[in-house]
Amino acid sequence: MEHLKCCLCGRTYPVNVFDVFCSECQSPLLFEYENQKRELHPAEKNPLEVCREFLPLKQADPSLDIGLSRTPLLKLDRIGETLNLPAVYAKLENMQPTGSFKDRGTSVAVQIAVSIGLKKIGTVSTGNMAASTSAFGAKAGLQTYILVKEDTGIEKILSTGVFGSTVFKTSGDYGELFKKSLEIGKRHGIYFMNSVDPFRIEGYKTLSFELYLQFDRSPPELIFVPVSAGGHLIGLIKAFEELLIQKYIDRIPTFIGVQAEGNSPIQTAFAQGKDRVDRIPKGDTIAHSISNPDPPGGSVVLDKLRRHGGAMLRVSDSEILHAQKLLAEKEGIFCLPASAAALAGAAKYAAGRQMDPGSSEKFVLVVTGTGLKGMRQMDISSMKVINTQIASLDSALQQSD
Amino acid sequence: MEHLKCCLCGRTYPVNVFDVFCSECQSPLLFEYENQKRELHPAEKNPLEVCREFLPLKQADPSLDIGLSRTPLLKLDRIGETLNLPAVYAKLENMQPTGSFKDRGTSVAVQIAVSIGLKKIGTVSTGNMAASTSAFGAKAGLQTYILVKEDTGIEKILSTGVFGSTVFKTSGDYGELFKKSLEIGKRHGIYFMNSVDPFRIEGYKTLSFELYLQFDRSPPELIFVPVSAGGHLIGLIKAFEELLIQKYIDRIPTFIGVQAEGNSPIQTAFAQGKDRVDRIPKGDTIAHSISNPDPPGGSVVLDKLRRHGGAMLRVSDSEILHAQKLLAEKEGIFCLPASAAALAGAAKYAAGRQMDPGSSEKFVLVVTGTGLKGMRQMDISSMKVINTQIASLDSALQQSD
Repeated sequence: MEHLKCCLCGRTYPVNVFDVFCSECQSPLLFEYENQKRELHPAEKNPLEVCREFLPLKQADPSLDIGLSRTPLLKLDRIGETLNLPAVYAKLENMQPTGSFKDRGTSVAVQIAVSIGLKKIGTVSTGNMAASTSAFGAKAGLQTYILVKEDTGIEKILSTGVFGSTVFKTSGDYGELFKKSLEIGKRHGIYFMNSVDPFRIEGYKTLSFELYLQFDRSPPELIFVPVSAGGHLIGLIKAFEELLIQKYIDRIPTFIGVQAEGNSPIQTAFAQGKDRVDRIPKGDTIAHSISNPDPPGGSVVLDKLRRHGGAMLRVSDSEILHAQKLLAEKEGIFCLPASAAALAGAAKYAAGRQMDPGSSEKFVLVVTGTGLKGMRQMDISSMKVINTQIASLDSALQQSD
Repeated sequence: MEHLKCCLCGRTYPVNVFDVFCSECQSPLLFEYENQKRELHPAEKNPLEVCREFLPLKQADPSLDIGLSRTPLLKLDRIGETLNLPAVYAKLENMQPTGSFKDRGTSVAVQIAVSIGLKKIGTVSTGNMAASTSAFGAKAGLQTYILVKEDTGIEKILSTGVFGSTVFKTSGDYGELFKKSLEIGKRHGIYFMNSVDPFRIEGYKTLSFELYLQFDRSPPELIFVPVSAGGHLIGLIKAFEELLIQKYIDRIPTFIGVQAEGNSPIQTAFAQGKDRVDRIPKGDTIAHSISNPDPPGGSVVLDKLRRHGGAMLRVSDSEILHAQKLLAEKEGIFCLPASAAALAGAAKYAAGRQMDPGSSEKFVLVVTGTGLKGMRQMDISSMKVINTQIASLDSALQQSD
């Protein structure tokens, strides 16, 4: 029977959207399937239908879709040359309907919410998940409640509130807000589809299945993923674990989780060989979307990375900003600083390993979110902007070269 | 032989990226193909390859791609019910890599630029085309020059300059700037792929071919398109004209161009039965992306609409803002005001025709650009944002319902 399971202690629990943490380990529960043959359906148009046999859905209701997409996989030859890397690819999650990978998770969680007759959903988020949950909630006609920190930027509030959800700017500790949301959700019948919700994590798996198909069923060697709460990385690895169980692949790609120096609790625990992630004081990094100091999925991330030979890396804000600039100026990709952390991590990894440029390894960067939501952080003085008049354009142009 | 042609007077010209207007009519030239059988290739992954036989490309160089996509076509049941419309669909061009339909045109123009060995490109734009040209220029390693008006908003400058292009904020008249760009381009070898460039227009055709395929080769009855310079609408109609010539279809969908009341030179000329569009004084509308007072494609738009039974409509800013709100709150689509003009136009059209709700007609709205680039225009006071503390969340939540 399908059930929720603690992948640390092995306890199982019935499927339930309101009880999603192990009562013993306090770790997030994951969805576990019956053991039977499953297949992907690459000819399907809807990305959820492609992976349906690997998702907790009998079928995907198309009326709940806002345009979830199989995102492009782009080869980054100019960056590869610049950084002396082997084949590098970007998976463009910035092109999902609300501009981030969160849409994959939200789409599955909202399908579940509607299928069991819930009328209210919510999330606790620093930004991208807030917009995603609000947009899918709007399409499904659900009441949507968004809890954000009081210092959440105006761009994040606008791109969330526009969908008609109710946004609570809440003062106090973020970790406490996370716990409080689950309590309130149970009491008021609001399904809080937070960062490590098991159904959200099931949705993230679709990215890995797509990668598997886009690489002609031969997975890439290395996948670099920015890490905040941990849910995304857990989902990406879980998909490859399931492909392995089903004997579609004979190895799991090496996953490298990347955090920012200003906020790297999981990387710290990984480096120290710990099984648990210690909560850290609120840090400071330009990569706001990966700045969770108390990541609820931390211990599961540590477990999965160690089990499959993965690792955690951390990068500085200046490495992140340089990576963001390279992605834009060399490859035409405008992403959030948090997303650029994947490239910064890949560069650091390759430098540390003294990569052979003739290597046939494939690096994949998961570009998690669009830069259009982070414009207030950007520095116009670093750009080439020239004030002129029509009559002086000729000379201004020549001088600019 | 392939050539450029004035569709008003019939004069033909050799293919050239630097001479793209008829020397007699001053109308934009269009690309004309040799008369031979052409086919679409829906199984191809790259959207340009799907339509390659209908494009001026021998093949699409994948190294110039930044993720151009076949965008989702979403059925808008909740809006259909709310506005008492028949089947309404949204074509989500906001999900292109730089967030607007411009990427379709730029992708083809940049393919041409590289194929003929050019090293410099540019555009004159109020925003979306600037970002698109800069992003594709970056990926192709081209020098990119962007001319914008001096009052261009900071979001537009940031989302353009980030790609490393040189941005000239130029004072003076926009129509004059457009003409000046072509002059300068010729002199400095810079291919200015402006709004009505014939190769850009060829790229816009790909949207219509996709619609044709997405509707199982049976085109929808009505397509609503926001109109500024006119290039986009010209391309969309030209694709269906070519499908008709090739006998794939037996009728061309009815195209309805939509302008804002504050800037409606083409709608005015259409309503007055004129063949030419008179330039109007700089108008005022919240729909900045469709605020061209001197549209270079105007006369071609009038010609094509009249030839195929299409029409022009105009809508007020309050109708546009209401449509933008409906798209977000009912369907989870966050678009620019200019894009929402398509829905405002559809609502007005249906009200004027007293549509039978049992009609089997299909309406398509072209959602031209993402709302993430227009957040500074948004009014947070119209959203449900509540300040609270963790301890008071329960009661804040109950009060909000």
